[in-house]
Order: sequence, then C-alpha cells, then structure tokens
Amino acid sequence: MGEPDPGAELHRIMELHRGGKLAVQSTVPLSSREDLSLAYTPGVAKVCEAIAATPALALDYTWVGHTVAVVTDGSAVLGLGNIGPLAAMPVMEGKAVLFKQFGGVDAVPICLATQDTDEIVRTVMAIAPSFGGINLEDIAAPRCFEIERRLDEALDMPVFHDDQHGTAIVVLAALRNTAALLSRKIGELKIVVSGAGAAGSAVTRMLLAGGATDIVVVDSRGVLHSGRTDLNGEKASLMAMTNPRSVAGGIADALRGADVLIGVSGGTIEEAAVAGMAPHGAIFALANPTPEVHPTVAIRYADVVATGRSDFPNQINNVLAFPGVFRGALDARATRITEGMKIAAAEAISSVVADALTADAIVPSPLDPRVAPAVTAAVAAAARRDGVCRAPSPG
Amino acid sequence: MGEPDPGAELHRIMELHRGGKLAVQSTVPLSSREDLSLAYTPGVAKVCEAIAATPALALDYTWVGHTVAVVTDGSAVLGLGNIGPLAAMPVMEGKAVLFKQFGGVDAVPICLATQDTDEIVRTVMAIAPSFGGINLEDIAAPRCFEIERRLDEALDMPVFHDDQHGTAIVVLAALRNTAALLSRKIGELKIVVSGAGAAGSAVTRMLLAGGATDIVVVDSRGVLHSGRTDLNGEKASLMAMTNPRSVAGGIADALRGADVLIGVSGGTIEEAAVAGMAPHGAIFALANPTPEVHPTVAIRYADVVATGRSDFPNQINNVLAFPGVFRGALDARATRITEGMKIAAAEAISSVVADALTADAIVPSPLDPRVAPAVTAAVAAAARRDGVCRAPSPG
Repeated sequence: MGEPDPGAELHRIMELHRGGKLAVQSTVPLSSREDLSLAYTPGVAKVCEAIAATPALALDYTWVGHTVAVVTDGSAVLGLGNIGPLAAMPVMEGKAVLFKQFGGVDAVPICLATQDTDEIVRTVMAIAPSFGGINLEDIAAPRCFEIERRLDEALDMPVFHDDQHGTAIVVLAALRNTAALLSRKIGELKIVVSGAGAAGSAVTRMLLAGGATDIVVVDSRGVLHSGRTDLNGEKASLMAMTNPRSVAGGIADALRGADVLIGVSGGTIEEAAVAGMAPHGAIFALANPTPEVHPTVAIRYADVVATGRSDFPNQINNVLAFPGVFRGALDARATRITEGMKIAAAEAISSVVADALTADAIVPSPLDPRVAPAVTAAVAAAARRDGVCRAPSPG
Repeated sequence: MGEPDPGAELHRIMELHRGGKLAVQSTVPLSSREDLSLAYTPGVAKVCEAIAATPALALDYTWVGHTVAVVTDGSAVLGLGNIGPLAAMPVMEGKAVLFKQFGGVDAVPICLATQDTDEIVRTVMAIAPSFGGINLEDIAAPRCFEIERRLDEALDMPVFHDDQHGTAIVVLAALRNTAALLSRKIGELKIVVSGAGAAGSAVTRMLLAGGATDIVVVDSRGVLHSGRTDLNGEKASLMAMTNPRSVAGGIADALRGADVLIGVSGGTIEEAAVAGMAPHGAIFALANPTPEVHPTVAIRYADVVATGRSDFPNQINNVLAFPGVFRGALDARATRITEGMKIAAAEAISSVVADALTADAIVPSPLDPRVAPAVTAAVAAAARRDGVCRAPSPG
C-alpha cells in the first residue's frame, strides 16, 4: 500500500473524459418508413405550420422548452483563468451532465470563439431561439455583468450567470443555516466578503437581499470604502451599498471583530488576520482548489467552516442551485429569473437540512436527491408570485 | 373501414412531436462524490489543462469530435418557405434524429434569429469551437452559396449545405444506377435540370463532376443560355458550364429529345413538355410533397421514375448521404468536404444496390442499414486520398 500514483490518477481522469461526456439522444422511434414519415417529412411539416401560426407552441412541440445553452467564452474557467473555448469544453460538458442528472434539463455547451462583449451578446441573441434558457459560465468580470444585463433585457427567457448567482444562492442558503445554528439573525452579523469579482459581487447583493445589513467587501487593494478613488462600475455600486461602519484598510482591518468571512477571491488570507474575528463565527473559504484559509486553520477561529471542496464538510457547490433554478424557471415558463426566485432557491436549499442542522452539515451534500426538486418547486412558485410566467400556450 | 381521418392523423403527428424529439444524455457515471470529483471539479481541470496545452486534444477528450451543428435561419424550410427559426426547429430536430440513427453523429439544432448573411457567418464562426462540423440547412438561395463558401474558407472543419450537396450526392447515385440499368454512359445522356436554386445548382455541379457533359438548366424564366441578360452570380456561373448545344426557350424546348429530367424546382411541369423527351429515359421529380411530374404520369414517358416521396419507389432522400458524409469526415478528421468525398459518397450509395438493380430500386431505401457505413468508409478514404485530414493528435 503506497501513496496514490499521480500518473495513474491523471490517466484515469483522462480516460473517463475520452470522447467527451455527452451524447444526443433521439426520443422518437425511427424503424419504419411510417416512423420516418411522421417524425420527419412529410409529417413534420404539420408541426412547423402549427408553430409558424402560433410561435408559443415551440415550447410544447420542440425540445426548446427543456433546453439550456451553457455559454462560455473560456475567459475565467475554474481557477485556470483564460484558457479559451476549446479547453473550457470539458467543464461545460460537466455542467451539462449535472443539469441533466439533477434537473432533467437538456443543456448544450456553447464555447465561443470570441471574448468581445458586443460579439458575445450578438451571438447569444442570434442562437437564442434554439434554447429555453441561457446559463452563462466562466466569463471574466467585469464583462460578465454587462453581458448578463444586456441579454436579460433583450431576451424573453431565463438568463443566469451561474458563477455569480449560483454561488450567491448557495452562500445565502449556507448563511441562513449558519445563523440558525449560531442562534443569530443574518441582519446582526458582521460579514466580510473577500473578493469583488463576479462571485463576490453577486454574493454581496444576494446577502443584502436576504437580510444582511453589515457587509464589508475587500478586493485586492483593500476594503471598498468611499475614500477609494479607483472604483468604478460594479465596484463603485457595491461600495455604495456596503460598509455601513466605514471601515478602511485591508483584509485584517475588515476581519477585526467580524462574525463571518466569505472568501471568493482565489487569494489566500493570513491566519493572523483571521485570528482577529469575533468568536463563534463562520468562515466560508470558497476558492478552489486552494481555499483562502485552509479549513484545518479556519476551524480554530470559527464554529462553522465551509469550502468549495468535496473532501471537507460543508461543500458550497453551485450544483445545489442551478439545476433546480433552471428546471423551475422552465417549468413555470418564466421569462426571466427574479431576485425572488433566487431567494426562494436559497431558502429551499437551506430547508432541506434545516431539521438536522450540525456544524458539519449546514448545506446538503451536492448529491442529495432532495435538493433539486425542492429548488424547482420553490423557484417555479416564486416565478408565478413574481408574475414573470408566459401565458399557457393555446395548444 | 373508411378514409383516414385527417384530424386524427394531425393529432397523432402533434403528439409524436410533443416535447420535441431530442434529449441530451450523459455518458459518464455520476452517483458518488468520487464520480463528481472526476467528471467535474477538481478532476476536470486536468483535462482542461491538457487541451489548453494541445488544442487538438479537444477532438479526443470532448464531444466536439462527434458533434455537428445543424444550422438554419428558417428561410427555406421544406416546401413551407420562410417560416422563421422557431417553426424550423421540428425539422432540425428530425435531422438530428437521423444523424444519430444512421451516422451515430451527435447533432445539435441551431435555429438563428437572423437572416442576414454577414450575421449568420459571424454567428456560426463564433460558436464553431463547440462542434466538429457545420451542417447548413434550409437556408434560402442565393445567400446559402455565400454563407457556405465563407464558412468553408474560414473554418478548419467540415461545412456542408445539405440542401445542395446532400441532394446532389443522392441524385448522382441514382443517375449512376439509372445509366447502368439503361446501359448508357452518364456522359452521353442529355440531362435537363429544372430549378436553379440551391439544389439545382449543386446537382448540376455534382453531375458534371460525375461525368455528365450535356446538361441544360431551366429556371422560372426559361433555359439558362448565353442570351439571357438577367443572370448573375450563381446562375451566370451555372450557365457558363452547361448548355453545350445552346438550347433556348422554355422547359418544353429543353426537354425535347432529353434523356433525363431532374426536377428540383418545386413547380409543376406539363405532361405535354414531358412527352417530348426521348424514349427509355428517366424522370427524377423531387419536389416535395408535390413532384413536378406525378409519378403515374412520368412512368408513361420514362423507364425510371424517382421522387422525394416515401410512398413511391426510388425515394431520393438526403438521409442516404448526410449521416455517412459527416461520420466519415469526422472519423477521418477532415478539415473540409472535398468534391472527391462527395463523389465517393455517391458511388457508395449506388454500389449498395448495384448488384440487384431494377427500375424500382435504383437507390437504397432510406432505412437501409448498409448505406451509412458504406458512405462513411468511402468518404473517410476519399478524405485521406485528398489529403485534408488533420494529423493524429499526440495523446
């Protein structure tokens, strides 16, 4: 019995991915001339004519009603950075596998040969009739914000940048259960968000929508506060809604007396800074594969520790959110994804384990089969409440 | 026993198409945390890194190597015309079903929200890294010519407008066997092509490449000849390579003494015009669902009659060509589809039934399982002969 052989492990991974991880499946029989004449010409013309007369029928009589495009420009893939569209494909395929497994959603990876904001928006708008929703993935900040905003405005279908909102939903779910476990209210927690990119921005906004009142955001140059002259766009907007105590300085200053640290930066945070936190708090160190604070260190300073890794307790994994978010939005025929739908998703995730809360189980396992159905139902109900559903089609 | 009930038939067709005809399938296991860590993070990062270092590995370790985008702008769908992207989807899904069934090719329908040539080219180029090949479908002439030419030049992968080349390949296959049955040579046949759109143009070029020498092309204004002052672009180009006897006039003039009529016009041709053909010839009346000459009329004037319909003998159906053409091109890692590959496909189709030729079986049935493997092998071999294959990847 020796150490695992890294060469053998690499070989095993590469072999698993050989030929890719997806296939297209036909769901109709095609073994006789009659099958062919019904599924294809001449029969199919009747279906085309019906949709041409009543376009909403496309959701009933094509696969569009249960498909999502997983769109990336390959510019911010995992922790690997700007590796381009071809190298991004294995991740997008994996995402599609998860969409299918947990949400029954048929997801198609679309890896783009451009990293230009206008061109990405134009391309997604051009292919949009082929899909029921758009999941943006691994697109670098700040262009991810503009791309999502423009597509959300232009398209009459769910548009969702998972690196922002998927992460934010699961963090809110984890924080709800953490607060319950610690017998605190979210509104009274001093929260530090380390990282002001796509995830940091969305986490901050989601926590504010979920009841947080005291968030300090820290980027690579320090705390976002009104004295910073280098902030614009999304960061200026974040600054305006956070930091009520006007904290200045660096991460150590932000963490002094804080209850919760949420790391979404990809950097590392020194133990000395973490040591300044208030006792009985929480640390979510989500950078992958290297958390901002190693969980064996974090647990010395916090009652609850979460990471993005599968080999420690409390894995904050987007897969808890996106399959059910899209399944619910598609089921409800939502034309967009509202704040209410995202909060409903977070509540559904946290409620799955709410009756059996421990410091090692503040969120469900990524493989917990109860999660996606709960999220689906909650998101669909919220879509109806928020009045963003299409009228049922006449067919 | 009464007549079939058209309402019941329509209902049956609509129900078959409910929910669409495609699904995405995962081809990897995902039931344990370990599965998740291999198929998705952190394991997948190793595959991304390998492809980032050696982009050609994308063909081995993603599904790109066996996928094709079926791209339409919805402008020329079946005989229905410009019905737009949503109403085109049932046909594109049907095409994807056929790709899978006969070629084992994973095809993804992409229905575009634009009918602008530049925008279509730009969009397909932007999404191209996601696919191993591009099948253009039901795009109106003349823009289909420019779109295919520009994409073929720009992309390092097979690009194939099926309405042109799929039809042309099967027509050449049918004509080869017709000539054999009639003990004639293709080069000595007087051939009339009625229709100068996407299919008419490609059929003419393919038959010339396949040995035809005397083709007269007729469009809605009459025979293409050097006296026509209204010809430009593709039609001028067709005119220059056809009509060696300088025929002028209309379809009746073209058909006088002709051996073969190939109808790809969508119009109808009067019996009086057909009556002027030479005896013991052939009529391929391919308009769907209404052939240019009804087969019960055509058989009075020709020894061999073919249509595009499944309810008469000799169905000229593109499905005989496109699954094997793409499977062969993908298997050989061809960077384009050459004339040689198309001719090889036609020869392969005709050879499947060459040993048992009758006037009612000049082409195989669309469901004949021998066809796609024969076409695949022939196309892959031709790609290698033509030197258009990528070098094998180092993995």
